[in-house]
Amino acid sequence: MRIVVLTGGIGGARFLLGVRAYAREVAAEVTAVVNVGDDLLLHGLKVCPDLDSVMYTLGGGADPERGWGRVGETWTVKSELAAYGAEPTWFGLGDKDIATHLVRTTMLNAGYPLSAVTQALATRWEPGLTMLPATDDRLETHVVVSGPDGDGDQGQRAIHFQEWWVRYRADLPTHRFVFVGAETAKPAPGVLEAIGSADVVLIAPSNPVVSIAPILAVPGLREAVTDGPAPVVGVSPVIGGAPVRGMADRCLAVLGVECSAAGVGGLYGGRSAGGLLDGWLVAPEDEGALVPGVTVRTAPLRMTDEAATVAMVRAALELV
Amino acid sequence: MRIVVLTGGIGGARFLLGVRAYAREVAAEVTAVVNVGDDLLLHGLKVCPDLDSVMYTLGGGADPERGWGRVGETWTVKSELAAYGAEPTWFGLGDKDIATHLVRTTMLNAGYPLSAVTQALATRWEPGLTMLPATDDRLETHVVVSGPDGDGDQGQRAIHFQEWWVRYRADLPTHRFVFVGAETAKPAPGVLEAIGSADVVLIAPSNPVVSIAPILAVPGLREAVTDGPAPVVGVSPVIGGAPVRGMADRCLAVLGVECSAAGVGGLYGGRSAGGLLDGWLVAPEDEGALVPGVTVRTAPLRMTDEAATVAMVRAALELV
Repeated sequence: MRIVVLTGGIGGARFLLGVRAYAREVAAEVTAVVNVGDDLLLHGLKVCPDLDSVMYTLGGGADPERGWGRVGETWTVKSELAAYGAEPTWFGLGDKDIATHLVRTTMLNAGYPLSAVTQALATRWEPGLTMLPATDDRLETHVVVSGPDGDGDQGQRAIHFQEWWVRYRADLPTHRFVFVGAETAKPAPGVLEAIGSADVVLIAPSNPVVSIAPILAVPGLREAVTDGPAPVVGVSPVIGGAPVRGMADRCLAVLGVECSAAGVGGLYGGRSAGGLLDGWLVAPEDEGALVPGVTVRTAPLRMTDEAATVAMVRAALELV
Repeated sequence: MRIVVLTGGIGGARFLLGVRAYAREVAAEVTAVVNVGDDLLLHGLKVCPDLDSVMYTLGGGADPERGWGRVGETWTVKSELAAYGAEPTWFGLGDKDIATHLVRTTMLNAGYPLSAVTQALATRWEPGLTMLPATDDRLETHVVVSGPDGDGDQGQRAIHFQEWWVRYRADLPTHRFVFVGAETAKPAPGVLEAIGSADVVLIAPSNPVVSIAPILAVPGLREAVTDGPAPVVGVSPVIGGAPVRGMADRCLAVLGVECSAAGVGGLYGGRSAGGLLDGWLVAPEDEGALVPGVTVRTAPLRMTDEAATVAMVRAALELV
């Protein structure tokens, strides 16, 4: 059995812990196609927050309390960068994390594509599944906002997603999201093959607007899913009208989509109507949510531990 | 009064503490022209060991015990890089130090010359004198060696000076030093002007072969010193036949020069005979050392504290 998961960072990484555990039970192969829209250059280092969250979480190196970054992290470099007045200061890189970015940046500058670099980094972490970036090409989520930027500029401007998310906590008048580079990006090697030979495609309970949408924005990738042989099951990132984690509500509001299990399901859409989904798994709190043309089922969706997450994955897979 | 000092790293940095203290007494301006031959790229970071030793030492941030790097240094990134198997492992970068290299590398990649980057870094450290790299261009000291390199290669090959010095502790059959890039390097902005308007040029008690020689290998720089108006006084890095610090003896042996105060003085040569020196300061242990055409005096040359170093500087300046 072959499972492909489209996923963002932290929530998706926890979901993948359940997918991996399930896959070990049934000897399935798992490929995670990971969002790169959050990636950015900081102090000359290429930082891939979603790929790293998946890698650290599956490799047992993530900080379980904070939810992001490395367990036992230290912050010496960050404090020294601040002493130099180096910008930006709103995104802190931990010392352990910086080693990852140094290795990645060195390899990228030597000409290796991100997918090859990801594979090289994974030899240390042994995530137990294949991690693929959605694309090796530049694809960055930018956010068109208006409002004060500290320079007195009141007009519209595009800022990097991370600046919007981390620096401004998504608290700016926001007009739209732009996936810079998406028009000419190509799926990373192995992505189309994995989707084309999958027995099922799962959409992790990640942010639909800024984690899943940038993956699907890669030309050919969405079509590989919608026109492919595998049924597609999504897991709602919204429970009882609130995102399980993060600020998906703010992202959905920009698109004018209700922050609800039905709202996100409708955003993805039923496959028979040109959308993505064959099945949509929602929490018991959202029983009755309807997505036209899509089989909707309920199951507990709180990923409190690995067993609960495995049960979620099983329920998703039983949907099709 | 204007003092120019040609200098390498650690020993030269300590000497500069004395020069700075002396200059404060007499309201003199000091310009340090610093060796860049030791510079190297490590994990994509531009590391300038001599510039940093000078900057950290004069800025009060150097580790006084170890002699190099930052006081209170931590090594998280190094240990993580090792966990990735990232090469090289023979040169360890501390976490605090890495912040310096990140700022420098980001600025260099943005197109700023090394001299401008050095000035920017110095705004934090306030070294109390002007630090100039000998050149903004690539000038790397390589070492032609033979012997096992781990790959079974027995032929001659050129390795970076740092690999020879740090990895092999200068303990390989060594044929010569090559200053890669020296032919086309230009003196950094301000270097020729500083030398041309100096009242005195001091040669710090640095390694003559791999710290001072690469500075003088920049076309036009040596001529600016030898043809300039300022008297030139060198301070011997060798006391009683042994280098005060480091492995100058191994470097001198490669050139067939005796490791003695007279040997190093002769290597620099008297200005009247096409060499550098008007004066040569040696330790009392080396009284009687002769360098043809050069005024030789003795003074205690152990830089045990700042007062002792100021006395050394004063003796050097009184020589001309």
